Amino acid sequence: MTTSVNKTVHPFDKGRLEALLNRRFFYAPAFEIYGGVAGLYDYGPPGSSLQANIIAEWRKHFIIEEHMLELDTTIMTPAPVFETSGHVARFADWMVKDTKTGDVLRADHLVKNVLEARLAGDKEARGQAAAPPTDDKKKKKKAAKGAAVKLADEVAAEYETILAQLDNYSGADLGELCRKHDLRNPDTDNEVGEPQLFNLMFASSIGPTGQHPGYLRPETAQGHFLNFSRLLEFNNGRVPFASAQIGRSFRNEISPRAGLLRVREFTMAEIEHYVDPDDKKHERFGEVRDVKLVLLDRHIQESGKNTTTEMTVGEAVDKGIIANETLGYFVARIHQFLVKIGINPQRLRFRQHMANEMAHYATDCWDAEIHNSTGWTECVGCADRAAYDLTVHSNKTGHPLVVRQALKEPIVTEKEVPEWNKKALGKTYKQDAGVIQKIVDSMDQEGLVKLKGQLAQGKAVITSSEGKEFEVTPEVLTIELKTLKQSIREFTPNVIEPSFGLGRILYTLLEHSFWSREKDVERGVLSLPPVVAPTKVLIVPLSAREEFDPLVKEVSSKLRKAGVFSRVDDSNTSIGKRYARNDELGTPFGVTLDFASVQNRTMTLRERDTMDQRIGSIDEVIAVVTDLVFGNITWEEACTRLPAYDGVQAIE
Amino acid sequence: MTTSVNKTVHPFDKGRLEALLNRRFFYAPAFEIYGGVAGLYDYGPPGSSLQANIIAEWRKHFIIEEHMLELDTTIMTPAPVFETSGHVARFADWMVKDTKTGDVLRADHLVKNVLEARLAGDKEARGQAAAPPTDDKKKKKKAAKGAAVKLADEVAAEYETILAQLDNYSGADLGELCRKHDLRNPDTDNEVGEPQLFNLMFASSIGPTGQHPGYLRPETAQGHFLNFSRLLEFNNGRVPFASAQIGRSFRNEISPRAGLLRVREFTMAEIEHYVDPDDKKHERFGEVRDVKLVLLDRHIQESGKNTTTEMTVGEAVDKGIIANETLGYFVARIHQFLVKIGINPQRLRFRQHMANEMAHYATDCWDAEIHNSTGWTECVGCADRAAYDLTVHSNKTGHPLVVRQALKEPIVTEKEVPEWNKKALGKTYKQDAGVIQKIVDSMDQEGLVKLKGQLAQGKAVITSSEGKEFEVTPEVLTIELKTLKQSIREFTPNVIEPSFGLGRILYTLLEHSFWSREKDVERGVLSLPPVVAPTKVLIVPLSAREEFDPLVKEVSSKLRKAGVFSRVDDSNTSIGKRYARNDELGTPFGVTLDFASVQNRTMTLRERDTMDQRIGSIDEVIAVVTDLVFGNITWEEACTRLPAYDGVQAIE
Repeated sequence: MTTSVNKTVHPFDKGRLEALLNRRFFYAPAFEIYGGVAGLYDYGPPGSSLQANIIAEWRKHFIIEEHMLELDTTIMTPAPVFETSGHVARFADWMVKDTKTGDVLRADHLVKNVLEARLAGDKEARGQAAAPPTDDKKKKKKAAKGAAVKLADEVAAEYETILAQLDNYSGADLGELCRKHDLRNPDTDNEVGEPQLFNLMFASSIGPTGQHPGYLRPETAQGHFLNFSRLLEFNNGRVPFASAQIGRSFRNEISPRAGLLRVREFTMAEIEHYVDPDDKKHERFGEVRDVKLVLLDRHIQESGKNTTTEMTVGEAVDKGIIANETLGYFVARIHQFLVKIGINPQRLRFRQHMANEMAHYATDCWDAEIHNSTGWTECVGCADRAAYDLTVHSNKTGHPLVVRQALKEPIVTEKEVPEWNKKALGKTYKQDAGVIQKIVDSMDQEGLVKLKGQLAQGKAVITSSEGKEFEVTPEVLTIELKTLKQSIREFTPNVIEPSFGLGRILYTLLEHSFWSREKDVERGVLSLPPVVAPTKVLIVPLSAREEFDPLVKEVSSKLRKAGVFSRVDDSNTSIGKRYARNDELGTPFGVTLDFASVQNRTMTLRERDTMDQRIGSIDEVIAVVTDLVFGNITWEEACTRLPAYDGVQAIE
Repeated sequence: MTTSVNKTVHPFDKGRLEALLNRRFFYAPAFEIYGGVAGLYDYGPPGSSLQANIIAEWRKHFIIEEHMLELDTTIMTPAPVFETSGHVARFADWMVKDTKTGDVLRADHLVKNVLEARLAGDKEARGQAAAPPTDDKKKKKKAAKGAAVKLADEVAAEYETILAQLDNYSGADLGELCRKHDLRNPDTDNEVGEPQLFNLMFASSIGPTGQHPGYLRPETAQGHFLNFSRLLEFNNGRVPFASAQIGRSFRNEISPRAGLLRVREFTMAEIEHYVDPDDKKHERFGEVRDVKLVLLDRHIQESGKNTTTEMTVGEAVDKGIIANETLGYFVARIHQFLVKIGINPQRLRFRQHMANEMAHYATDCWDAEIHNSTGWTECVGCADRAAYDLTVHSNKTGHPLVVRQALKEPIVTEKEVPEWNKKALGKTYKQDAGVIQKIVDSMDQEGLVKLKGQLAQGKAVITSSEGKEFEVTPEVLTIELKTLKQSIREFTPNVIEPSFGLGRILYTLLEHSFWSREKDVERGVLSLPPVVAPTKVLIVPLSAREEFDPLVKEVSSKLRKAGVFSRVDDSNTSIGKRYARNDELGTPFGVTLDFASVQNRTMTLRERDTMDQRIGSIDEVIAVVTDLVFGNITWEEACTRLPAYDGVQAIE
């Protein structure tokens, strides 16, 4: 829907948005009346609906559209699974302790916050606008505190380079940075100790004896991999196919402070797409080839820069920037999904992981990063996990996690094969017979060819690893070239994994949707697209008087039949105030029932962003609003079907 | 849909059902390739869909129908919340340890299993059919082992009484039972020790310092209660209203052995309905008054019996068997929901909790119990939690969790009120002035009336708690009758809680739906109602040949537009086999595309239970099957719209 409304008159105000989200109970700190716990949030009614709608659209866009196999696996996981997957050893962040208070900070965040604050101070000292890169209040204060300090040009440049490469540093590197640049805990100005690894999994124990350690999964992925054989069988043994799961995961973040962007418990939606490692083409790549993407590749970042390039996914794959078609296909589908639910494509980019940054299981990874008031935030990861997971679990358990594919054309190979005259062998060599056979059977093709040549001469000498020599004759051993047919190919599939953090997507979507009315900055609006808006249509009777009841019920029931989710607001306040409240809830359309409705069966229709009002018969308006909600028509088209309304209600 | 198919020719065979569920990956033990963990299960594609469909119907039946406020709160919960709620102290089961092996058993399950085995043995010894009350294989064996032992009549009667009251015993009682009746660990025949409490919550720790203990929630309820003030505000300050949440909960069961019926991680759907404690009437009770229920009340059980009574919910409330209309309303709505998704109403009863059995927070509780091969299983609890939770959290945090209701008519009361002449009081009594004022201000109405009488006589004597006497005159103190107006009523609402264990409902539904074809016991069918069936329509082209592709796409797309979820099965096997596979998956309808479809645009429609086949034009069949899926027509009605098909495909 296009509108002529200017949504950028007022600069984005995070405080105002947060107040709105809190007031309307989109979400709130969990256990708030107990003082809350950092990194844990509860979603209220509009937040729950928004999340449910995003999930429903995700299910349509990915699971149904691509016939993925949905799973629902457990969160509680016995320790051996994560020992095998590598999470017990490596799923960790570097933390540093304040040497005096013992407060714990995440090492990379400390480096980032202090350097950004110093750079902001430098800019101010140079008389440039002090625009700290984030709007977090505490950081602003600190930037302001150190505001006057100008840095040497080469120091400022060094800081910029460090920040661009931050995700690439090891623990030792971070410790070195803290010492070299005297980076201290900003809250206390105390020095910090050496970085130590902190495992991010929540630990527990299963059963009454306390003998079975378990972890809460930090991702849903392992639940897919462990069920691979069953999924493959369900899919009649064929690849490629994908499994998908939407569920809760947990990460015991060191010190979460960024609202929904860094939390300890979150809902993920993950796809594991299993593909032949020798053929990562994708059947439907042609459908997305022309999707334009903004890319930030590994090499640019490793050179200390942040320059993005725009190109089609087809071009990116052709040039080898994105490794293969399947990875490219999912990157494009992720882009399409995010834009469909309302993410601003101008604030969306795909960033490739640098070598040291990559998770231990990945061979390539592109993050969908969405820009918001704190900077660029990873919201979706799209990794090529290669055969890592299936291989380690298979090795550990002895359970084959492979695809067995009947070859259309059997592979025919020729091979020299030793043939023994067992009787003669035993008779001639007695207790050495076994040793001799072992030596020959373990020879490679080259050795066998050589031996065959010697035997053709009448006899050959075989030497054991201890240096003992045996003479063998063609009577005992012959070597023949045989034709072998292989009709089954067995392989471990590679896994392409698009992994969505729904809370981060939800929060950035709220930021992208928020603006204030030109005439009144206090009147916030969430321009959520109908597809995800918690309520699609608000039904507003002029008052709660009984005479409107039959019409309210009629409209409500007709909308329900049309599959449109509506709510009635008959609270005892003005129509304008009721609409204003629902602008904050992101409700895209409203219909008003008044005395004219009772007399003439007419109804007005209001569009949230423009506040434009149209009028028509009740049934006409229901038909138009249904088309609008399902995206069949734009508001401009709706206006051609319904005349403008210029009654008194238009005054808000 | 009624059919004339006889589904009870073959007796229910749990082994056969379990093999089907495993083969078709409805669910499977989690971490199976690692040897599994008791009480943890993963849902595969059909199990996930079935669960998602049950949830979708639940959302419609409860949340949307009753305008409930949906929530999504965190699983990880800081310890103080469960200390306050009472779960740290009391959410526990009694466990006993095998005195030799140290194996841990749940005490009540031990009593139940051993006594039931002995009773089964007794029946066999008396020459009655040895029908153990459950079909668990191990138990069968044990019953068989002790089969020959006849019990004295009074012993058998005592065992029956114990079993009927089992949920009512304390830990000490259970220990006493083990000693008195020599109940031993059936696996080892060793004695067991004294019952000890084992807390069922999974423990963990939040944050990097290990100083903040947390638990995984054992129910979603606390997340509702802690957000009560926000929910109330969202509802414009009015009660009654309900919050609802669907999500994962965890219970560290002592030794779970009963498949999906007793697990350590499960999905719940919980409603908290907040109601005025002085008015537990329900606006819509009239709509359910005539719903017939099978009830097993507290008194019957406490008398050691198991006799159920059938009556309407209206009658049950009128007679005081169910405490109030709101509780009754939800019991009836639960009944309607379970029957709608396919639970056999003949195998559904509501059992009231006995006094000792009730959870620590409940004042009354009715369980929806569903009969299955292991006996009667609690699948939904419907408890009146009174004001317990809101009160304890409010007391602990100091945050008021109350409703403030403007009274339509202010409550007017008359009260004697002391009025002091402060100046005279200070002058006359000096340092005693404060003491005197305190004594009078803390008097009740009776004391004040008496004092007023004395003052009317000219003077009164006031005695302090230490026995000191003071004389006061009307100059210092007068007592006047005043009229007071109270226009706000403040109260803590009561909470009615319907709480659904979705895994248990799903499993019992699968048992109720399972049967085998009369002619071939190997051909299992799941007669899931269309509303919850994972796939509604199977599209079966005669073969995977290209000429069927356009029709398959057309039918598939037309069904999707009609909102009907279909799947194509073009695998390389006979149509009969493909239908048989989908009978096992519970797919209610199938359409076949063959050469006649290509030539004449006709299509056959098959009904799962009867295997009846009808024929019509593609569009007619789509219209009919859409009506069938949405429950607008029965199969009998469909048959009047489409003629029978007697082609070769009918042979399965």
